[in-house]
Amino acid sequence: MTTSTQKAAGTAALEEIREKARRLRIESMMATTAAGSGHPTSCLSAAELVAATFFHAMRFDPSKPNDVGGDRFVLSKGHAAPVLYAALAEAGVFPVSRVMTLRQFSSELEGHPTPRVPGVDAATGSLGQGLSVGAGLALGARLKASGARVYVLLGDGEMAEGNVWEAAAFAAHWKLDNLTALVDVNALGQSERTMYGHDTEAYRRKFEVQGWQAVAVDGHDLAAVMEALDKARAVAGKPQAIIARTEKGYPISFLRDKDGWHGKALSKEQLEKAIAELGGGVSIAADGGRSQERRTVPKPADFPSPAAPRYQAGQMVATREAYGSALRKLAEVNPGIVALDGDVKNSTFAEVLGEAHPTRLFQGYIAEQNIVSVAVGMAAQGLVPFVATFACFLTRAFDQVRMAGISRSNIKLCGSHCGVSIGEDGPSQMGLEDLAMFRAIPGATVLYPSDAVATERLTETAARRDGICYVRTTRPKLPVLYGNEEKFPVPGFKVLRQSPQDRVTLMGAGVTIYEALKAYEELKAKGLPARVIDLYCVKPIDGRALGEQVSATGGRVVTVEDHYPEGGLGEAAMTALIAAGVTLTRVRQMAVREVPHSGKPEELLDAFGISAGQIVRAVEEL
Amino acid sequence: MTTSTQKAAGTAALEEIREKARRLRIESMMATTAAGSGHPTSCLSAAELVAATFFHAMRFDPSKPNDVGGDRFVLSKGHAAPVLYAALAEAGVFPVSRVMTLRQFSSELEGHPTPRVPGVDAATGSLGQGLSVGAGLALGARLKASGARVYVLLGDGEMAEGNVWEAAAFAAHWKLDNLTALVDVNALGQSERTMYGHDTEAYRRKFEVQGWQAVAVDGHDLAAVMEALDKARAVAGKPQAIIARTEKGYPISFLRDKDGWHGKALSKEQLEKAIAELGGGVSIAADGGRSQERRTVPKPADFPSPAAPRYQAGQMVATREAYGSALRKLAEVNPGIVALDGDVKNSTFAEVLGEAHPTRLFQGYIAEQNIVSVAVGMAAQGLVPFVATFACFLTRAFDQVRMAGISRSNIKLCGSHCGVSIGEDGPSQMGLEDLAMFRAIPGATVLYPSDAVATERLTETAARRDGICYVRTTRPKLPVLYGNEEKFPVPGFKVLRQSPQDRVTLMGAGVTIYEALKAYEELKAKGLPARVIDLYCVKPIDGRALGEQVSATGGRVVTVEDHYPEGGLGEAAMTALIAAGVTLTRVRQMAVREVPHSGKPEELLDAFGISAGQIVRAVEEL
Repeated sequence: MTTSTQKAAGTAALEEIREKARRLRIESMMATTAAGSGHPTSCLSAAELVAATFFHAMRFDPSKPNDVGGDRFVLSKGHAAPVLYAALAEAGVFPVSRVMTLRQFSSELEGHPTPRVPGVDAATGSLGQGLSVGAGLALGARLKASGARVYVLLGDGEMAEGNVWEAAAFAAHWKLDNLTALVDVNALGQSERTMYGHDTEAYRRKFEVQGWQAVAVDGHDLAAVMEALDKARAVAGKPQAIIARTEKGYPISFLRDKDGWHGKALSKEQLEKAIAELGGGVSIAADGGRSQERRTVPKPADFPSPAAPRYQAGQMVATREAYGSALRKLAEVNPGIVALDGDVKNSTFAEVLGEAHPTRLFQGYIAEQNIVSVAVGMAAQGLVPFVATFACFLTRAFDQVRMAGISRSNIKLCGSHCGVSIGEDGPSQMGLEDLAMFRAIPGATVLYPSDAVATERLTETAARRDGICYVRTTRPKLPVLYGNEEKFPVPGFKVLRQSPQDRVTLMGAGVTIYEALKAYEELKAKGLPARVIDLYCVKPIDGRALGEQVSATGGRVVTVEDHYPEGGLGEAAMTALIAAGVTLTRVRQMAVREVPHSGKPEELLDAFGISAGQIVRAVEEL
Repeated sequence: MTTSTQKAAGTAALEEIREKARRLRIESMMATTAAGSGHPTSCLSAAELVAATFFHAMRFDPSKPNDVGGDRFVLSKGHAAPVLYAALAEAGVFPVSRVMTLRQFSSELEGHPTPRVPGVDAATGSLGQGLSVGAGLALGARLKASGARVYVLLGDGEMAEGNVWEAAAFAAHWKLDNLTALVDVNALGQSERTMYGHDTEAYRRKFEVQGWQAVAVDGHDLAAVMEALDKARAVAGKPQAIIARTEKGYPISFLRDKDGWHGKALSKEQLEKAIAELGGGVSIAADGGRSQERRTVPKPADFPSPAAPRYQAGQMVATREAYGSALRKLAEVNPGIVALDGDVKNSTFAEVLGEAHPTRLFQGYIAEQNIVSVAVGMAAQGLVPFVATFACFLTRAFDQVRMAGISRSNIKLCGSHCGVSIGEDGPSQMGLEDLAMFRAIPGATVLYPSDAVATERLTETAARRDGICYVRTTRPKLPVLYGNEEKFPVPGFKVLRQSPQDRVTLMGAGVTIYEALKAYEELKAKGLPARVIDLYCVKPIDGRALGEQVSATGGRVVTVEDHYPEGGLGEAAMTALIAAGVTLTRVRQMAVREVPHSGKPEELLDAFGISAGQIVRAVEEL
């Protein structure tokens, strides 16, 4: 249920809201001048849009700004953060005095919004992602039947980002009529005039052909904006776009529609002049302005254990298949689990979930950026979204994953078809940099199961664990290694072969663990006993525990991975061992060292240096 | 000048081309059946489109398929590779027998096209990038006044990728009337029907609102496709789109418009049946089918040295400023140098080039994916394109950079605003994973200059060096460290402080080298002499040379970087040292270990663990 603390608009309200817009302008300029940096002119153009949305259209309880049962606001043009902070303050979420701590080291009111700020669901500031987040929030609100609406404020500059149009198509396809986009067409980008300048009709038509209800308005005509918001609310079956013609810096004489003012704070003198033009200042209570930091974001809810895996030792199962099956089982015990597909559900096996629960698998078509940011919006609604595509195509959404990391979002990603073991399709389809990418997300968990049992257990771990979790799956069928009762703690690894005589530690995961096991037999026959470790958790790694194994083999290590060497499993292991102070005597990091090409999986493993034969050779040369 | 080996079309030609389309179908099916995998039905839908383009519209010399003076063809829907290979063979570029080596380990005819295939300018197979590559080729052809036209064949599934719409807007903005897009609307994606099915009008309107000339045709009506291509050629001032209604698997009775056939080769029996339906087989000469591999792609042309840098020791200059100045100087001695901007040219200082040479800086607005792939197209035309934006926003184009790596493309990228040293703008604007990203591109060169002189020299190195080069620049002004005559070989590093008594090696680059130099003074005062190394080249690294320095300090190393620890400078150095067999006794990898926030640069360097004070502490604890 939504909570209304706002009255319906009328002529009286119009003047109240006009005063709110005036205050948003003044507070945005004051805060940026106090900070000595920021984007005041980008706030000025949006003042009526934000005031009308917050103080006329939105229904939410300012004492519970994080309650997703209330209407949501996403500032996709994140550099206009001060006007959002001012609006939150004017709505009563926190004191206006706090807005004046903008951009300070000790303040949660950062240069661009993050969920450290009460009422903010996702970090913005990398442009073009907010509409996807909004679509995810809207979809989540629909699933929860909360009745909440979602408002997204975009800049015109960011309309050049393809992500926006992925989101627009998605929102229309899913008929998200609880989603309203407002576009602040101030015609000035950072470095020059935008491609379309003040041609609001160009934007209106772009939304319309996507299947949106779209109108153009004068963005400084408050009554017109309020009317457009009212009409938007009445639309059924379609998302709505309000394309607002504005001026950057409006209405200040020396700022309005002037190039060269992007991202510049006013001097104290300029600020005084601007405030005077606006009819004089606002009084701000000296009430301390203490931190309002939101320290928690939605955590995954606990859920009962699914049935244990049911595989037979040696059974041939691709880990991507096991992922699909795991997801279905998890969905049965956790109603919050949903999945997003980029039209590869028959390759990632996300279709297994869809077959059992058709309403919980969302088709996002071939638009990876959008499905990742939609997932961020759904996670903010308390859902546990799993996004799966080929590992290599997740690189398409690196920026979206990066922002999800800044949002401390609870999204889960699965990349299938990792490495050269996919075979004939060639390098464009091989994920060889995905471990590097996900390792570089602070706080992310990176899982790389080697068999079906591990996949089922680790997919459950991803669902239970807070924050971004990545599961890397493999294309070919591989024999089941583990018993169905095996547990896979995080951090952790499995010692698959060992003896007191071991001369070297072989470390891998996925397809390379099977190569290591073959190499083990060959090495054993040659009188070179090796320890074999399945490093199923690539991040975090317990370097001390791993170091005990390595030390037991005289500090001799060979890592082998179906990934480029940079940022992968080998570097992860070395970093952990080095940090733990483990003495390494001989190390060889085996990985794919050039752009591979098409061929049979076994040909490629050998040609690109990660086969059993290559491992044997490496150990012999160590 | 273009070379015409084709006659103008007429009624006679129509039947010839119809036979070509029939042969393309048969050869695509034969090749995929022989390979046992591939996407024959995606080839069948496109047969008339490809035949009409290759045998009616295009003007090129099949004996010089890589001559960019001839018309170009980009297969954006790269999974239809067999139909492209068949068309190249039927055009006489290589024998048809070679097509039958599809997907074999020893063949250059990979599962998806790469420039190893004669006539292919860029790798495709990650969908939605081809139109940007085509726009780059078209822009390059215009700059070279070659008169060449560019044809891009897209699938309907990939129209969901935002990158396509970035490219469409860009091509219209730059009035690329030498660019024609053909969209194969076969209505079936990989896993289900596409969002718009056979609604060609939806796609036509989407192109039209972007400013394209767009028509819908029956994609199996060869005469209609030829006429549309003729009309496209006559359009001035606008790119043209031909939206073709087709059927996947057409016209084979058991394949056409049938779901579940994506990416599946026919059995031998099915193949026979299909060929019979097409009126019988084609005879293929048993002429050996030897490799046609294209082993070279355009290399950067040599050029005279620009004037030496002119900085004063200690002068305060941001490396991003020095990048702009370097680019301008290089442009004066190398006419092939061009630049692409994502509306941040006043932050990256690419504007310095634009001010001196307005026609060589191309505004791509806020659409990073597109500018990277446009650069790939321009590089294929022999130009040396420099793409610059904030380092963090290059993550938006990781997939495009990845594909550029597979293309062995000669593009240059600059990422400004790296790390926490940007200060108040907050984490969404900080590049903290860019080193990890670019290191994971095979063959890429990763440069991280610490001062203005190094930046000028290393930007020249990027322009001279083959392949992808990345230059990481810093926001704050920093004192000039090097003399103007200093050289910066690749691989290489600079030893800035040393003595025979050194107890530890401090390694950094960019802002952290200044912190290391401060730490050096403090450590010296404490009787802990340190060696200080500026690791300006993060990839490649000469581990042996670096190891000599480290060994001279007893194997004790502290790395410090304004980047996350994963995949960054520290891991790069460790990997190189380990590969060189260097004995490491004590190592500390200092880096930003959590999501940072807003604040003053110096506050952030200290709070996130990479300040001089933190370095001193780390050395003392080593």
